[in-house]
Amino acid sequence: MAAEYSDLEKAINTLVTKFHDASADKGPSLKADEFKNLLSSQLPNLVKTTGSDAGFGEVLKVMGVKDGEGITFKNFWSLIQNVASSQFGQLSHEKVSKCTCLLL
Amino acid sequence: MAAEYSDLEKAINTLVTKFHDASADKGPSLKADEFKNLLSSQLPNLVKTTGSDAGFGEVLKVMGVKDGEGITFKNFWSLIQNVASSQFGQLSHEKVSKCTCLLL
Repeated sequence: MAAEYSDLEKAINTLVTKFHDASADKGPSLKADEFKNLLSSQLPNLVKTTGSDAGFGEVLKVMGVKDGEGITFKNFWSLIQNVASSQFGQLSHEKVSKCTCLLL
Repeated sequence: MAAEYSDLEKAINTLVTKFHDASADKGPSLKADEFKNLLSSQLPNLVKTTGSDAGFGEVLKVMGVKDGEGITFKNFWSLIQNVASSQFGQLSHEKVSKCTCLLL
């Protein structure tokens, strides 16, 4: 990136590139194993239950991933949205996340 | 934050805290001026048209903000989603964003 970017722009860039880099073939979606690695390496504190297969399946379900399908950026984004809304809700002392069961 | 956080977790935290810090009263929504400052200081490269009032109005419209209402985290998030999807689409050479008119 040539121009100078703000913290917020860098943060958006991090979200996009981390997902993109997790794909071995740099395709538009991740395989389940690729996504599992991304979760355990990049979201160990904010998304729990990555230890068990059942927990992992629950996370996929919340993200709207159907059985046997790859994880798209849109699916990934719904998870990030959940995490971010939950964090913001904690800051603002109001409940904005419908699903806090999986998240810190 | 006590634990060690990953780049992705720090990025989510940045998105949340930048929005939260932009509110003078640390409330759940931003006033138009507060949001305008946030855009010009934090998204100068990714969201254009912040120079004119008409352009700013367009951005608010895309975010789903109604006339005279404050900007909620949900509104803000829809903008971030647009920017991130557009960036990811460029990486993956596929169009995933419906609205690239306002974004780089």
